[in-house]
Amino acid sequence: MKEIRGVLPPVATPFDAEGNVSAEHFAANLTRYVETGLHGFVILGSNGEYSLLTKEEKLRVLEIARAAIPQDRLLIAGTGTDSTRETIDFTKRAAQLGADAALVVTPHYYRPQMNSAALLKHYRTVADASPLPILVYNVPAYTNVDIDAATVIELARHENIVGMKDSSANFLKMGEVLRFAPFDFAVLVGTGGAIFPALCIGANGAVPALGNIAPRECVAIYNFFQEGKMEQARNLQLRMIRPNGAITSKWGVPGMKAAMDEVGYYGGAPRPPLLPLGESERNALREILREAELI
Amino acid sequence: MKEIRGVLPPVATPFDAEGNVSAEHFAANLTRYVETGLHGFVILGSNGEYSLLTKEEKLRVLEIARAAIPQDRLLIAGTGTDSTRETIDFTKRAAQLGADAALVVTPHYYRPQMNSAALLKHYRTVADASPLPILVYNVPAYTNVDIDAATVIELARHENIVGMKDSSANFLKMGEVLRFAPFDFAVLVGTGGAIFPALCIGANGAVPALGNIAPRECVAIYNFFQEGKMEQARNLQLRMIRPNGAITSKWGVPGMKAAMDEVGYYGGAPRPPLLPLGESERNALREILREAELI
Amino acid sequence: MKEIRGVLPPVATPFDAEGNVSAEHFAANLTRYVETGLHGFVILGSNGEYSLLTKEEKLRVLEIARAAIPQDRLLIAGTGTDSTRETIDFTKRAAQLGADAALVVTPHYYRPQMNSAALLKHYRTVADASPLPILVYNVPAYTNVDIDAATVIELARHENIVGMKDSSANFLKMGEVLRFAPFDFAVLVGTGGAIFPALCIGANGAVPALGNIAPRECVAIYNFFQEGKMEQARNLQLRMIRPNGAITSKWGVPGMKAAMDEVGYYGGAPRPPLLPLGESERNALREILREAELI
Amino acid sequence: MKEIRGVLPPVATPFDAEGNVSAEHFAANLTRYVETGLHGFVILGSNGEYSLLTKEEKLRVLEIARAAIPQDRLLIAGTGTDSTRETIDFTKRAAQLGADAALVVTPHYYRPQMNSAALLKHYRTVADASPLPILVYNVPAYTNVDIDAATVIELARHENIVGMKDSSANFLKMGEVLRFAPFDFAVLVGTGGAIFPALCIGANGAVPALGNIAPRECVAIYNFFQEGKMEQARNLQLRMIRPNGAITSKWGVPGMKAAMDEVGYYGGAPRPPLLPLGESERNALREILREAELI
Repeated sequence: MKEIRGVLPPVATPFDAEGNVSAEHFAANLTRYVETGLHGFVILGSNGEYSLLTKEEKLRVLEIARAAIPQDRLLIAGTGTDSTRETIDFTKRAAQLGADAALVVTPHYYRPQMNSAALLKHYRTVADASPLPILVYNVPAYTNVDIDAATVIELARHENIVGMKDSSANFLKMGEVLRFAPFDFAVLVGTGGAIFPALCIGANGAVPALGNIAPRECVAIYNFFQEGKMEQARNLQLRMIRPNGAITSKWGVPGMKAAMDEVGYYGGAPRPPLLPLGESERNALREILREAELI
Repeated sequence: MKEIRGVLPPVATPFDAEGNVSAEHFAANLTRYVETGLHGFVILGSNGEYSLLTKEEKLRVLEIARAAIPQDRLLIAGTGTDSTRETIDFTKRAAQLGADAALVVTPHYYRPQMNSAALLKHYRTVADASPLPILVYNVPAYTNVDIDAATVIELARHENIVGMKDSSANFLKMGEVLRFAPFDFAVLVGTGGAIFPALCIGANGAVPALGNIAPRECVAIYNFFQEGKMEQARNLQLRMIRPNGAITSKWGVPGMKAAMDEVGYYGGAPRPPLLPLGESERNALREILREAELI
Repeated sequence: MKEIRGVLPPVATPFDAEGNVSAEHFAANLTRYVETGLHGFVILGSNGEYSLLTKEEKLRVLEIARAAIPQDRLLIAGTGTDSTRETIDFTKRAAQLGADAALVVTPHYYRPQMNSAALLKHYRTVADASPLPILVYNVPAYTNVDIDAATVIELARHENIVGMKDSSANFLKMGEVLRFAPFDFAVLVGTGGAIFPALCIGANGAVPALGNIAPRECVAIYNFFQEGKMEQARNLQLRMIRPNGAITSKWGVPGMKAAMDEVGYYGGAPRPPLLPLGESERNALREILREAELI
Repeated sequence: MKEIRGVLPPVATPFDAEGNVSAEHFAANLTRYVETGLHGFVILGSNGEYSLLTKEEKLRVLEIARAAIPQDRLLIAGTGTDSTRETIDFTKRAAQLGADAALVVTPHYYRPQMNSAALLKHYRTVADASPLPILVYNVPAYTNVDIDAATVIELARHENIVGMKDSSANFLKMGEVLRFAPFDFAVLVGTGGAIFPALCIGANGAVPALGNIAPRECVAIYNFFQEGKMEQARNLQLRMIRPNGAITSKWGVPGMKAAMDEVGYYGGAPRPPLLPLGESERNALREILREAELI
């Protein structure tokens, strides 16, 4: 199994003018991302608008991605759904299409029932049946479910559950998992605004939306840290916080896609009900990108 | 168009021992519900575990339901998904299968972006394309999106948006909609614990999970109110509050299905990741049902 | 003991130009409110800006109020603080100053610890020591603590805990309390937007901020209900919902005070950090009051 | 002005058997804390149960503290209240009693109105009138108000607003403030579970409840970082995360006081409505302290 480590952005799924998945733009973006030194890619993450795609589209997206991503780079597929059995089915399909690992979002529609017992059962059932190693994906901003450290640590004992992505940048949770989970359990921070401090506390890497617009900067933070250049890592990280906020908490996927357009990748429009940024928002976004020296 | 009025429970989707949709049990439940005087049925609501079914299963569920529900009773299909275009596609399919109206849940995965503008655009796009009249479905407990009164009132001006179901039992919102939406806009309260006060303030009816376990009582509350028997309506309503809480906020769909088993319908197990009630919970549930004279 | 019943608004505390409590304006407002038929008054509630007053000021406010309110009308004093012993001390003082009952807000600063056990202990300790009957005051919008029905029902068994005010307009909780608390436990709804449906389900009355700007209308809703004039009660209630929202959830105490100025009482500025309404907000407020026929 | 830097725990306020502030135990604790190398102390923070003390008690606590803390160590007084003018009054009193700076919690009772404009006005008014330099204190877990980065950055331009304590361990907010606030604006992380990563990203220090039970360990993390011993800092930090969680998010102030008793300081009972830990909780706490090598 490839080591899960480094900067692994959740890449955008581009749509064409008719709102269909654009294989062409998707492949082109990926080809260029590969050249930036990114260590791998998460396909069909929240930033890939997975929840707005049909199952057929999701399978097609994986095919395109695997063709564009060299075999020596990680392809992690977002395969989680609200249903345990559908998650298993889709994870198996992802394996057939060449994914290296599966990122499984916490089920969330019936959130009041998604307690520790339900999450333990779900992940273990999926992991038992999955041909791919499983990463737990915690993203409370979207799911309103926040899996706790004790549950993750318990799950980490399953041999086919190999890591977690926590988009909430919860350093207390990450720290507790790092201390009590098996040594090789991969902890990935899910925001580009905290890559450096997460590496400091022991995280293995990051799954940052920011990697869609500033892949070289994200990789540089990682490399500076590896080389012990703490001051440079910190300064670059601080410069990236505001653009990171713009394309996540502030404007979400529509902001990320607009920023991709600005920095020279193909972003295009998000799929409805997501609305593209208006002109004044786009101007504010440009200002933020400029201040951060990204354009 | 049939008038949207009365008690219209969101019926459970039964599964067999293998976890597949049980057409047999589903049809049998519906046939018996019809005899209780219920005014219609919501199929594929949250209590129908719609988010745990594949699209194929959802279509099959609608077929079974339409066959079991007499043509003069309302069949409202839950057709909402996170994606505008998929919602349109599924709503058209539901129309072909004989649904009378479509209940469209607020899109919610990208909740920070689901502001008024996004929701207006979503519902108008769906309503423009839909052969069925549309009901807005607000259920913050599951979606963590809470559409505001002003947005609903604005949507109510669309000729193909004919009502709303609000599961949050927010009387201030219901009241504002009742005062400012067109006269024939249907306001349905989404909880069996507040049918009577909702009717008092002017609601047209209810979509109560409680209708799965106490259909006759729900209908009786409605009829008492229509006949001006306020004292009887109030007392029956008060008796129903605790069992209603048990099968919604307390134990959710698993609690509702367990209660169905207790009162003599087929409930069975929910689909994972939902876990069936444990034995101590089931005992506590029985106590609640007994106190409410439902068993 | 006077019966706790009817419309009992939480009256505003007026300040003069220097920001001091204005005894003159306060007494004048109360004198005029008395003429409207209000059944009593809550002094030092959230709308009385109790949390912005020193203890000395709070005592003075009670003195002024008792002098202005006839002995046959209820004076309920807000005496809750975060500390059990300070709450007891202040409740005793309020008794000396002639209050008829004490409204005790849920302690809330240490909200993660304010579980059922802590709340039971707090209220029982206060009730044991208090010369005044105690009402539980639940106002999650301000406290972020939401006492549950089971805890209230347990507290209702204490002979000196005689009622509750629930500002969250939670009809499920109110209904459960009405069914399971002793018959004479008073349930007061804490919003003017739901007086009528609350009376329908069995509430004894209301503690509405709305009573500060529309006392006659609030009393009329109550009287219509008592006389069985349901249609008139409903229509007046619906007309009051939007102004009620304006002075509570939308603009809070500053909105209420601005509206008092508009309708002819003395509102004046709230105490900082509360900011008075700006001019565009005030215009929007006027429009709402006009539509509701309050000006 | 003394530099605001290092480990500055929010010290507990001990009570005696009658529930009165125990000057003796308080002074004894402080004297021993001073020997551990702590850089200063926050008196009357949330962990000092400030909201459960009368104004007279708060003044007395400051007196005791100043007498016990050497003049060359920072004494930061928690002086915030819900009211702007009471905050000013108390801040002046704290200055007279020898505090070096004032930690002003965001006003929070009227939280829906505590928007950026209200917070800007509050802090500027306090800072203009205060003889002490002001630190903004953000603690959403207790206040449910979360001041945003833009507001803090704006406030940081005021010459008498010199820093902030953020208890939410929000690294994105801390990072944005570090990049855009004046260079000498002090950023203090408010949790002992994230001292090390906060220092990595550029924070000046920490205000950790953990300092009440593990002062030497907190200081050691700080010193390891200063000396570039990253591995040792990380490992010690990871070891401290679970005990930190036990005395904050898990069991709050009662947990912290129980842990103080366990490790050899005087903790004693919290003031009601806070309840002391029960025996099973205390056993679980001991287990956590043991695993972390604190007992």
